Amino acid sequence: MSERSGIAVATIKYYLREGLLPPGERTSPNQASYGEEHLRRLRLVRAMIEVGGIPIATVGEVIAAIDSPEMSLFNVLGVAQDSLATAVPATRDAEWDRAYAAVCAEMDRRGWDINPSPQAIDTLTGVIVRFAQLGYDTWADDALPSYFDGARRVAEADVPAALSAGDRDDIIDAVVVHTVLGDTALAAIRRIAQAQVSLERLQNAD
Amino acid sequence: MSERSGIAVATIKYYLREGLLPPGERTSPNQASYGEEHLRRLRLVRAMIEVGGIPIATVGEVIAAIDSPEMSLFNVLGVAQDSLATAVPATRDAEWDRAYAAVCAEMDRRGWDINPSPQAIDTLTGVIVRFAQLGYDTWADDALPSYFDGARRVAEADVPAALSAGDRDDIIDAVVVHTVLGDTALAAIRRIAQAQVSLERLQNAD
Repeated sequence: MSERSGIAVATIKYYLREGLLPPGERTSPNQASYGEEHLRRLRLVRAMIEVGGIPIATVGEVIAAIDSPEMSLFNVLGVAQDSLATAVPATRDAEWDRAYAAVCAEMDRRGWDINPSPQAIDTLTGVIVRFAQLGYDTWADDALPSYFDGARRVAEADVPAALSAGDRDDIIDAVVVHTVLGDTALAAIRRIAQAQVSLERLQNAD
Repeated sequence: MSERSGIAVATIKYYLREGLLPPGERTSPNQASYGEEHLRRLRLVRAMIEVGGIPIATVGEVIAAIDSPEMSLFNVLGVAQDSLATAVPATRDAEWDRAYAAVCAEMDRRGWDINPSPQAIDTLTGVIVRFAQLGYDTWADDALPSYFDGARRVAEADVPAALSAGDRDDIIDAVVVHTVLGDTALAAIRRIAQAQVSLERLQNAD
């Protein structure tokens, strides 16, 4: 498995110990055999950790959700997507309440359901509080509509592609891969777009 | 400064040692005084590390760029935005070349300049290679146009706001804050949008 994936044996053993990979089929006391499914799972775990920078504990939560046959597809997707949101520590004071109200108002305006994404909504609220603490207290009013438009545009490309990936396991794999790799892709494309828009603005200002 | 920012004295001393904060004005051998500028810089460093998950070394690069009076504004913004892109390790083989060509084709189609964002373009190329390795080899063709549209929509909200923030220092501060906090905000809003689009699709499929 190490040879085929290019990932060190010690790393694979670590993932096995942490329960991120299912054990192989024992062929002798010191040997186990691993199939295509193991290789695929290994690549998924590796992508979450290396590209997504997701902590091992969170990877474990996502893997546990993927491996729960009794959970509905929508709930598994919810757990996976929500676990992959960064937590932003924030005190729940009046400033937090104001920020939370701004998020709810934007979602309400769009007719979006706030129930499936409690962790992501908390994260976004925490970010708005940080913007305000750094002196950018109109950020939510100014930028949320564009961010929601942009994120919806991206989700409309990814979600249908992921949902048509095949059976339940394929769909979950596709959603996790698109979520994790997509974050890094979107952050990179956002840099490229920022540079382009800055260039256009600064040139026009000359 | 610890009292006013809510950040532990040991953490502040660590940032001072790492050169992330300029030294205060010595008032006695064991005392230094810190002003509003220090508090603002402290909050910026804290946001990069805690909200953005940016490694200390990268925070140092961004701070060094901010503190270089001889760099043009556009170059400082380039260094800051580019340093804040995650590096994705990838071998430069035929697969990498194909992915890089797909990025250049998308930018060319839009008439965007590829020069200001080498690190972000490398990151995006590495992500496309990972998608292909995980079996999603049409991702770039299917999703890049939507990602570029979405990212441009977000940049058009952030960049003009940041560029009108005030003098050179204010603009750089605004770009860094919008870049770092904006990534976390966008990832969270993307989760919210994914949940919403999944909900709509799965309900329609019932």
